[in-house]
Amino acid sequence: MDTLKQRRTIRKYQQREIPADLLHELLEAACRASTVGNMQTYSIVVTRDAARKARLAPAHFNQPMVQGAPIVLTFCIDLRRFSKWCEQRKAVPGYDNFQWFVTGAIDALLAAQTFCVAAEKKGLGICYLGTTTYNPQMIVEALELPRLVFPITTVTVGWPDEQPEQVDRLPLEAIVHEEVYHDYTAADIDRLYAYKESLPENRKFVEENAKETLAQVFTDVRYTKEVSEAMSEVLWQAMKAQGF
Amino acid sequence: MDTLKQRRTIRKYQQREIPADLLHELLEAACRASTVGNMQTYSIVVTRDAARKARLAPAHFNQPMVQGAPIVLTFCIDLRRFSKWCEQRKAVPGYDNFQWFVTGAIDALLAAQTFCVAAEKKGLGICYLGTTTYNPQMIVEALELPRLVFPITTVTVGWPDEQPEQVDRLPLEAIVHEEVYHDYTAADIDRLYAYKESLPENRKFVEENAKETLAQVFTDVRYTKEVSEAMSEVLWQAMKAQGF
Repeated sequence: MDTLKQRRTIRKYQQREIPADLLHELLEAACRASTVGNMQTYSIVVTRDAARKARLAPAHFNQPMVQGAPIVLTFCIDLRRFSKWCEQRKAVPGYDNFQWFVTGAIDALLAAQTFCVAAEKKGLGICYLGTTTYNPQMIVEALELPRLVFPITTVTVGWPDEQPEQVDRLPLEAIVHEEVYHDYTAADIDRLYAYKESLPENRKFVEENAKETLAQVFTDVRYTKEVSEAMSEVLWQAMKAQGF
Repeated sequence: MDTLKQRRTIRKYQQREIPADLLHELLEAACRASTVGNMQTYSIVVTRDAARKARLAPAHFNQPMVQGAPIVLTFCIDLRRFSKWCEQRKAVPGYDNFQWFVTGAIDALLAAQTFCVAAEKKGLGICYLGTTTYNPQMIVEALELPRLVFPITTVTVGWPDEQPEQVDRLPLEAIVHEEVYHDYTAADIDRLYAYKESLPENRKFVEENAKETLAQVFTDVRYTKEVSEAMSEVLWQAMKAQGF
């Protein structure tokens, strides 16, 4: 429990390899995660090769973790393996659709998070790359993902070379609803975001970006409406291109 | 690591409550999971009330875990809270789209799996309900989920009242690809699925359903093409109805 509670994302890694047997053990643990109908509708692509990391890097906006980590794992929705098995067994698969895209995503993400929990327990540090769904087509090309395989998240992993402060979280009452969803009043929002808004690093963030509020840093700088809408179209088209 | 490796899904629970402070601790751990931009784009609805479980049950095809578990957790994509905060802070949110539906799903699923790992560490048993994305609209109504909130998975949790055998998994080489995706040959498929096909419980499954192959049990009985396509449309429409 302490590992879970004390965790922090690690973006800087030592120049030190992860032994193959340790990686194997972590991946074995990941594959014990729950999976729909025991179908395991996911694949994991392991990148160790520097040239391959260099090919992946632009898809992740050249965030330094990609080339700085000893290992990059791309977790993919995979309905291909299961469909191939069906076809080879006189069965007609019907998994090239939106429901199975989402189901494959669930499977892949439960495996990814189990991997991360296990890795952190072993003293490794991890960082998720949300950029995976921004530039899926570039990842499809870099990792040669065929039809019915789709990258849903990426994890960089290595031995920590930093010990950052733990970042804030919203109070639990912001996230948890008893019995039914209790919608937020204006007063709720003020109260639940007060601590986050009060933090010196967030105040600095507002100042550096010359904004009036922290929320504006998100909407005007980090994740704008225009970019989000364009990225939605990119994601949708990439999903279609992969056969879903 | 042993908890992760030895885990099994638990569908039968003791008639014994989960203490509020234990649940709180597990939810706190869940909320330490990685989240995009530290935005926490998810909510968790806790169901303890028997009448509410009865309302949820049909959405999960009346699987007995829903009414049999002391607690049912519905993990939801939630862009509502963040958008409300933005609107209240002179910022224009742009999170009502497909990219953020997927991003919210990633956030919610990492939190869900962290909850499950923590719960199992404490001796609790869990079961994921994949039915959540089959009947999302029924869950939206049962839990009164407003616009920009969407149920992505459900976990039943309680003290185990069974100790089932651990189920099989594909060999790790079926899931893991080195550097690039290595497509499966016919011989690969035969080799990778041989163990699963050889298991007595799976042979029995084929026989009981009067099928020729195990794959046909999946395609003709469990997850047919027709139902999957209909469920895709249902999921898509529900996503749209919730404002994404």
